[in-house]
Amino acid sequence: MSTVAEEAFPGYGEIIAEVWRQKQLEYTWLRTLMGRYEDFSVITQDSLAFTLRCFGLKYEPGVFQRIMDKYLDLDLYRDANDALTALKDRKLAILSNGNSEMLDALVRNSGLDNVLDATISIDPTQTFKPSRAAYMLIEARLDISPADVLFVSSNPFDVCGAKSLGLQVAWIERVTPVAMASELADRQHFAPSTIFKMLRTQMDELGFAPDYRVGALAELPKIVSRSAA
Amino acid sequence: MSTVAEEAFPGYGEIIAEVWRQKQLEYTWLRTLMGRYEDFSVITQDSLAFTLRCFGLKYEPGVFQRIMDKYLDLDLYRDANDALTALKDRKLAILSNGNSEMLDALVRNSGLDNVLDATISIDPTQTFKPSRAAYMLIEARLDISPADVLFVSSNPFDVCGAKSLGLQVAWIERVTPVAMASELADRQHFAPSTIFKMLRTQMDELGFAPDYRVGALAELPKIVSRSAA
Repeated sequence: MSTVAEEAFPGYGEIIAEVWRQKQLEYTWLRTLMGRYEDFSVITQDSLAFTLRCFGLKYEPGVFQRIMDKYLDLDLYRDANDALTALKDRKLAILSNGNSEMLDALVRNSGLDNVLDATISIDPTQTFKPSRAAYMLIEARLDISPADVLFVSSNPFDVCGAKSLGLQVAWIERVTPVAMASELADRQHFAPSTIFKMLRTQMDELGFAPDYRVGALAELPKIVSRSAA
Repeated sequence: MSTVAEEAFPGYGEIIAEVWRQKQLEYTWLRTLMGRYEDFSVITQDSLAFTLRCFGLKYEPGVFQRIMDKYLDLDLYRDANDALTALKDRKLAILSNGNSEMLDALVRNSGLDNVLDATISIDPTQTFKPSRAAYMLIEARLDISPADVLFVSSNPFDVCGAKSLGLQVAWIERVTPVAMASELADRQHFAPSTIFKMLRTQMDELGFAPDYRVGALAELPKIVSRSAA
């Protein structure tokens, strides 16, 4: 996201991507609480509009749309395909805040449609994660009881939401506590990106903990075979 | 908050206060969505614990408690008493995320108990703002229909939540868009506090707008007399 934003607004790419992502999450939570659901593409637009407005940036509609379009063609993490291929004898599914149209485009553009058994959008529930209704879709759609699901996420709030409903959860811990504290130690000079890293990658204090902490998707097959044994 | 945190953790006071506040809000939203309500004092503790853990700070229990205690004795904005006194012929009330115990201590310590007709905690609803149930307490407790209430808040999400339920809303706009864009213009050097200012003081894109934007509480009596006319 930051590359396309950087092309449109030189010098602002990274910070736009970070504020955008933060506000996108906030708007999913706030709209769910307000009972004012709008689908994820609307929220993605609104949070981008907020971000550009705050920075006082002016732009043509075409520029806005070019950044938005990038959301339909995201790059996979490098180890995603290998991990999913190694797990292909299991039922594999995505549970996403995205609406079906966005999700279908993303899954097709990334080639994931070849390995996934289901792509589940929270859209029918008119709520976003971590609402209980969102995670309940897994059992409803796949007929697998929560305790037999291994839910995988890098988002601490998503980990806690899934755990709250009784799923087994593997947390992709992208930034270790030691790495985080070390980045924060130089407290006079840390960058905005460090703040967002703290807000979004460190395990939250919501009364739940993941069953597994993994450093990379490549560790998942081992966990699945152990947990099934 | 930042002063007491600065005394305990020199050099970290401001950033602790800011991350703490951000996570405190996030936890109110996330717990409401998860259906895992805990009262505001628990959330305030949990979000402080998150913040200190991320920074890798070690501390004695007494230090943690001293920072927490500050939450029960917050300073009023300087113009709050004058504005409330000028409005004393109206029904005046607070609607707060705080639990009754915290609220009663705060109101008593600040002397606001002399001017308020009611102090309403969201606690009985087991949800936090901006859930609809929170704002519905106003009519239930004061027997005033939403359109006859002037709801005052500096928090954009709170403004949108109240507006969504049909209340009249005055937004205390602490940082104008021009001031914000100007602070963000020096994009290589902005401080973490600038990021939090952007996230928490600028009007959100949630489909609602306040009826009134005011720069200071002193403007409220004028709005109330105009709106009653």
